Amino acid sequence: MNDSLGIVEAIKVTLEGSLELECGKTLKNLDVVYETYGDLNSDASNAILVCHALSGNHHAAGRYEGEKKFGWWDSLIGPGKAIDTNRFFVVCPNNIGGCHGSIGPSSRNIETGEFFGPDFPIITVKDWVKSQAMLSDYLGINQWHAVVGGSLGGMQALEWSRLFPKRIKKAGVIAAAPKLSAQNIAFNEVARQAIIKDPDFQGGRYLDKETYPKQGLRLARMIGHITYLSEEAMRSKFGRELKEEKLNFGFDAEFEIESYLRYQGDIFSESFDANTYLLMTKILDYFDPANEFNGNLSDAFREIEAQLLIVSFSTDWRFAPERSREIVNALIEAKKNVSYLEINSPHGHDSFLFANSDYVKGLTSFLEN
Amino acid sequence: MNDSLGIVEAIKVTLEGSLELECGKTLKNLDVVYETYGDLNSDASNAILVCHALSGNHHAAGRYEGEKKFGWWDSLIGPGKAIDTNRFFVVCPNNIGGCHGSIGPSSRNIETGEFFGPDFPIITVKDWVKSQAMLSDYLGINQWHAVVGGSLGGMQALEWSRLFPKRIKKAGVIAAAPKLSAQNIAFNEVARQAIIKDPDFQGGRYLDKETYPKQGLRLARMIGHITYLSEEAMRSKFGRELKEEKLNFGFDAEFEIESYLRYQGDIFSESFDANTYLLMTKILDYFDPANEFNGNLSDAFREIEAQLLIVSFSTDWRFAPERSREIVNALIEAKKNVSYLEINSPHGHDSFLFANSDYVKGLTSFLEN
Repeated sequence: MNDSLGIVEAIKVTLEGSLELECGKTLKNLDVVYETYGDLNSDASNAILVCHALSGNHHAAGRYEGEKKFGWWDSLIGPGKAIDTNRFFVVCPNNIGGCHGSIGPSSRNIETGEFFGPDFPIITVKDWVKSQAMLSDYLGINQWHAVVGGSLGGMQALEWSRLFPKRIKKAGVIAAAPKLSAQNIAFNEVARQAIIKDPDFQGGRYLDKETYPKQGLRLARMIGHITYLSEEAMRSKFGRELKEEKLNFGFDAEFEIESYLRYQGDIFSESFDANTYLLMTKILDYFDPANEFNGNLSDAFREIEAQLLIVSFSTDWRFAPERSREIVNALIEAKKNVSYLEINSPHGHDSFLFANSDYVKGLTSFLEN
Repeated sequence: MNDSLGIVEAIKVTLEGSLELECGKTLKNLDVVYETYGDLNSDASNAILVCHALSGNHHAAGRYEGEKKFGWWDSLIGPGKAIDTNRFFVVCPNNIGGCHGSIGPSSRNIETGEFFGPDFPIITVKDWVKSQAMLSDYLGINQWHAVVGGSLGGMQALEWSRLFPKRIKKAGVIAAAPKLSAQNIAFNEVARQAIIKDPDFQGGRYLDKETYPKQGLRLARMIGHITYLSEEAMRSKFGRELKEEKLNFGFDAEFEIESYLRYQGDIFSESFDANTYLLMTKILDYFDPANEFNGNLSDAFREIEAQLLIVSFSTDWRFAPERSREIVNALIEAKKNVSYLEINSPHGHDSFLFANSDYVKGLTSFLEN
């Protein structure tokens, strides 16, 4: 790919100070891993923070030495792309609580030398945004040109605009929702139960016990994938196609969709931490900015100064367009500067990962204006 | 309830003859448990066969001595109800492969004395209809006034009209689909994997090993329940209501929807056989009458002589109204006698269990005409 960033490297920093969490606990020695793409200009006014979603991490674009796979948003981040690294300095951290180098359940608590495991505190989107603000301080970025993310990443962008109105010029809130529906929570709960009830979960102390709840995590990911794809995408990608020509009257995978889900579950369960997965689903469930304002979302948006772009995708049924419109309507009611883009895309919730041309155009012009 | 059947009893019979299954195997000594409500008239022309769905059984109406719970379709079957036992003789069998008394994986194979377990053959909707025809012979019912069912039960009613055109006057196909979508199969596959990968499943030989894959079955049922309820029903029933007033920052059930799913999973996993659950999901996946006709559904319907009523429910997303319309359109193309009723109901797929007045009126007039 000509327009790719090429080889990138992750950076690790231990942030100074401590973070008071919403749950009442305090985290210190915040190890944070992040990547940057492009160059910060002299007045530090061209920085864009990219926030990742449930299973994402700091590796958003480019690729690592010796690896073929590109970062999860490589389609949108790079020279000449929607998030143009010729113009912008892009920062993408692995969120705290994650499992790719930032402090999280699979880290050792330096005070005890033990794995945090299930003792890692339950954090929230607000806590994440505060930890990202600590990273901003460290990087010398007083104000982000933009904070952008999809799904749970979009919730962080929205929360940034609420919590630090002076530190963010633009917020790109993509394929998100103002809070989870009962159905969203239900899917998360089944995923959690799959992990927690796996005998190898060991009450979350699997690292100490040298076991791993692989089957639970595999099931959780399979369930997740059903909600990431649209029915339409599943139909056109897999339909009822059989792996072999005839029904085999047994329980081996015989429809293509079965193989796909098993494969996705297998690879994920080998590379992701189960306690982090539990934590991420809980962070989603808890997100509800209107809650502190008696359920009034527009009141929750009162302090926002940023310009906002809300993007939704026609076939997304995890966070459907109507969920984005709830955000838009509340922003309009609060008299904020908001644009809304509803993109026709067949890829369901995963659409935010694809460089659909309308989506790219919208995002490009939003960031550059 | 004044209009209930009161106390009912199940009957068990061993059907003579053998059943050649679609998979090529043969089943003998077909134990079948069933219930009947109302009286068969002298020329056996008032009999209605009720077919159950995935987790259903022969106990469709009334209640057992000493029990409070009514059968799963008690809202529709009884004196003066939609399926009026003052006029009709209603028969509801537990399908073979089931786990409530009819021959199935948890029965002992009388030839070996061992539990069938995972050796029970994979059967199909067609096999079920043939086994039900054997029961009809035994009962002296040459032609059903109607065959009626919801969900997987509706698929049986449709298959009856195709396989035995002379033996069925009316088919009531409720909340069904002409075949499963990739997404439907995906949900079934996750449920299967939850059961199969439970260490207590023991390759399906849990009865021999005296274990039970309770956690797997519990997860399977939780996943199922998400697809039975509409998003709307979940929202109005549970919303984001918390069990206690505040977030507890832990993994106990805190949203009402979590408790509901856990409870449903728990009770189901104590009363249903895991091998039967696997089998039922496979029967759903395999159902595809058009398959033998190069995918042409209308050709698959060519031999039908019955009058058909197709019913769908507005908020059903498991088998949405458009899936019912596929059946209707193919029947119209095949020039069959078909009526279609799309009912506004908030209960999602489960709507077929509720006595919505439009639904009751439609079904009543269809059966009585």
